[in-house]
Amino acid sequence: MKKAIIAITTIGILALMGMGYHEYQNRLPNQDENVKMLRAIYDNALLHSDSHENLRYLCKRIGGRLAGSPQAAAAVEWGKQTLQRLEVDSVFLQPCMVPHWERGEKEQARIISKLIGWEEVQICALGNSIPTPEIGLTAPVVEAKSVEAIADMDVKGKIVFVNNPFDHKHMDTFDAYSGCVGDRYEGAPMAAKHGAVGFILRSLGHAIDDFPHTGNMAYEEGIPPIPSVAISTKGAEYLSKIIANDDEASFYMKLNCKSFPDKPSYNVIADIKGSEFPDEIIMVSGHLDAWDNGEGAHDDGSGVVQSMDVLRLFKDLNYKPKRTIRCVLWMNEENGTRGAREYLKVAKETKENCILAIESDRGGFAPRGFFIDADSSILKNRFSKIESFRKVLEPYQLHIFEEGFSGVDIKFLKEIGTTCVGLVPDSQRYFDYHHTANDVFENVNKRELELGVAGMASLVYLVDQYGIELAEGKK
Amino acid sequence: MKKAIIAITTIGILALMGMGYHEYQNRLPNQDENVKMLRAIYDNALLHSDSHENLRYLCKRIGGRLAGSPQAAAAVEWGKQTLQRLEVDSVFLQPCMVPHWERGEKEQARIISKLIGWEEVQICALGNSIPTPEIGLTAPVVEAKSVEAIADMDVKGKIVFVNNPFDHKHMDTFDAYSGCVGDRYEGAPMAAKHGAVGFILRSLGHAIDDFPHTGNMAYEEGIPPIPSVAISTKGAEYLSKIIANDDEASFYMKLNCKSFPDKPSYNVIADIKGSEFPDEIIMVSGHLDAWDNGEGAHDDGSGVVQSMDVLRLFKDLNYKPKRTIRCVLWMNEENGTRGAREYLKVAKETKENCILAIESDRGGFAPRGFFIDADSSILKNRFSKIESFRKVLEPYQLHIFEEGFSGVDIKFLKEIGTTCVGLVPDSQRYFDYHHTANDVFENVNKRELELGVAGMASLVYLVDQYGIELAEGKK
Repeated sequence: MKKAIIAITTIGILALMGMGYHEYQNRLPNQDENVKMLRAIYDNALLHSDSHENLRYLCKRIGGRLAGSPQAAAAVEWGKQTLQRLEVDSVFLQPCMVPHWERGEKEQARIISKLIGWEEVQICALGNSIPTPEIGLTAPVVEAKSVEAIADMDVKGKIVFVNNPFDHKHMDTFDAYSGCVGDRYEGAPMAAKHGAVGFILRSLGHAIDDFPHTGNMAYEEGIPPIPSVAISTKGAEYLSKIIANDDEASFYMKLNCKSFPDKPSYNVIADIKGSEFPDEIIMVSGHLDAWDNGEGAHDDGSGVVQSMDVLRLFKDLNYKPKRTIRCVLWMNEENGTRGAREYLKVAKETKENCILAIESDRGGFAPRGFFIDADSSILKNRFSKIESFRKVLEPYQLHIFEEGFSGVDIKFLKEIGTTCVGLVPDSQRYFDYHHTANDVFENVNKRELELGVAGMASLVYLVDQYGIELAEGKK
Repeated sequence: MKKAIIAITTIGILALMGMGYHEYQNRLPNQDENVKMLRAIYDNALLHSDSHENLRYLCKRIGGRLAGSPQAAAAVEWGKQTLQRLEVDSVFLQPCMVPHWERGEKEQARIISKLIGWEEVQICALGNSIPTPEIGLTAPVVEAKSVEAIADMDVKGKIVFVNNPFDHKHMDTFDAYSGCVGDRYEGAPMAAKHGAVGFILRSLGHAIDDFPHTGNMAYEEGIPPIPSVAISTKGAEYLSKIIANDDEASFYMKLNCKSFPDKPSYNVIADIKGSEFPDEIIMVSGHLDAWDNGEGAHDDGSGVVQSMDVLRLFKDLNYKPKRTIRCVLWMNEENGTRGAREYLKVAKETKENCILAIESDRGGFAPRGFFIDADSSILKNRFSKIESFRKVLEPYQLHIFEEGFSGVDIKFLKEIGTTCVGLVPDSQRYFDYHHTANDVFENVNKRELELGVAGMASLVYLVDQYGIELAEGKK
């Protein structure tokens, strides 16, 4: 009985100190050292980061860089050279074959109606789309509120316009995206299955503006491919109004895109070797490829230069990691994830032990926390471990620690037992830029970008110090 | 003894449930109702807010609106009419006298040096500055690293350039501003006291760009006033380099500004009357005046349209508040706070019971939380009360609850026992725009602005439901 009273008393005292049992369990040894190191990381990132200047080069001197393009090749070479200049322990290219699709000359589109004669609207081909005939495609246009609704409509010989706007009520704008992105993949096959000759998607964004949003689409075996485009949200609103008042309205589109045979390309990889556990890899990453219509500044130039800068920062602080810190610049996230699949294949063959992988691919905005994912057998343990770092990270405005989607490239690594973490920046502005001509260097704020570097480096440092497994008995 | 064991056991059980003692104490009654209401508030703000369109009008149709200007008069009239259209219970103007300073024609400036001949640089007069003579002012220019350093320099007959950059290491950019804003007020008097004939301040911002940042300055009794300007950070870096290499460099400036006698103006006030405690006022506010060189979009058009929209939102939700919800659009925050002082004076005379005042004056960015202030005799109690709302606010990414500075206008109300709360949005981009020609409508994101409306409305709702005093015995 006495023992029980003492145990309960301890818990009671902790509670009165404002400290939960959980928190007590998760207190880190050497907390003062961590506080000092995180301050040094943030000071370095805010004063000495190369990320903003590197982003300027990647956006302004190279630009849009879809897999298979000359710009993607330039980005690989630039990534390799820039990492080599950091004098890390090794920099190497991991070969992979990538799809090769080109947009060609800028697309053209018109709404044709007895109400207006005709009017030009802003569209762009969806990635992987077939072109129209050289003289373009003109057909009656019908509106569907959803992809499912197409099944009940007469779309034979027509162009189908799926007008499914973002749900503005979500706090996290990626939840609005998730609610619509399926349309981009499923819309054209569904329309074609029912006899349509073309497909128009309302652009995936909140703002009503004139920037069409590209992004990948896919065809289905046995269903004829049809030309597929995104129309700007402003164009979508206009088209919808015309269709509502003229059931004979038609649409003209001219696409000049083309698919070519697969091309060789590369993931770019750089390591700072660990001193105690060199086989345990802690990865930071972003994807090097970007859609051709913008500069790929937020998507994902930001993740690329942030990941590179984590290595620069540790070199600059003269930090000798226990574990190997690896930067991976993924190839072909946008239309195939061939780089990520190849990495996984090789990692399985070599029995690689990547304990943590971070991906920054939600834009270079002010970081707010982390989404954590892992194989379900270990997720609870790994989540609790990362949550145990909360106290030192919160002063840097990293408040969000949630189980959630990590990243399109790193998610594959769950198969080899990796804990996968997505850097979560503020999401409000992301879909103003995503996959548009407006995703340019000028729209990335230097400090917000740098805070992402510091947030990633801080988590890398903590996992390097404390590992990724929460000891048995803790929770 | 048995009683003690039971008490400790309760605490222990709470702790094991992951719930601190503090948290248990602060659980709100009717929590389900709150969760529902906050969701309704956010849905309304994200779907039906007028704030973005109101901001467009204020910025594009009225523009910069310094106290005493025709634009400030237009803003008062617009504010009154727009609030009247909401059909709230009352809208009225509170008269006050305001200073009247005009910039006049755009300023000109040149660096003159044997190294370069001369080169134009971007400056703007600081508010309240005297003009130069009509032919301008030309004098040798010297650089001081701080205002204090001037005392040890020979500045007689010279123009003093204080080049004290922002400290980039602060997470909250307002801390960097606090470290430099004193220079804007103290620089010219200090320089003049030692015989200087002109004063140049390095612009108060992080970015290196060509937008000079204006802001108010003051002269001191018995010290001759001298023309005072801010130079863009790019200009400051250049001027510093020239001075370092040419100790005979001089500076030319031409200011056309002028002070006029005080003018009558107004705070704009609107109320939704409380049904149970109409004398208890809950205030939302922003300041209507804005510097003349930009559109006052972030500073503080955002706070104005957000405050107005809180009333619209409650009307739209058909919410009948127990307490009076008041919107105040302050006049003359930028160069005198005459509106706020007048409000305080009247409030004292009428023994007004304003229990809570919120000010949004840190830009229309994604909200991250609240800074809370009150008279020291009640601060702890009021802070704990507002912190007790944390659990329902955190799902909306409001994580910051700190004792801190509330707002330039509402801070006066501490004298009458008001709990003063500053809405705290993400601060990273604020000083890219603050007091510059770049503070325009296009740089405010619609969703970020709307989330501020919802954050303010949520806190208003909770205080309307639960009051502002934490009951005795709780902490």
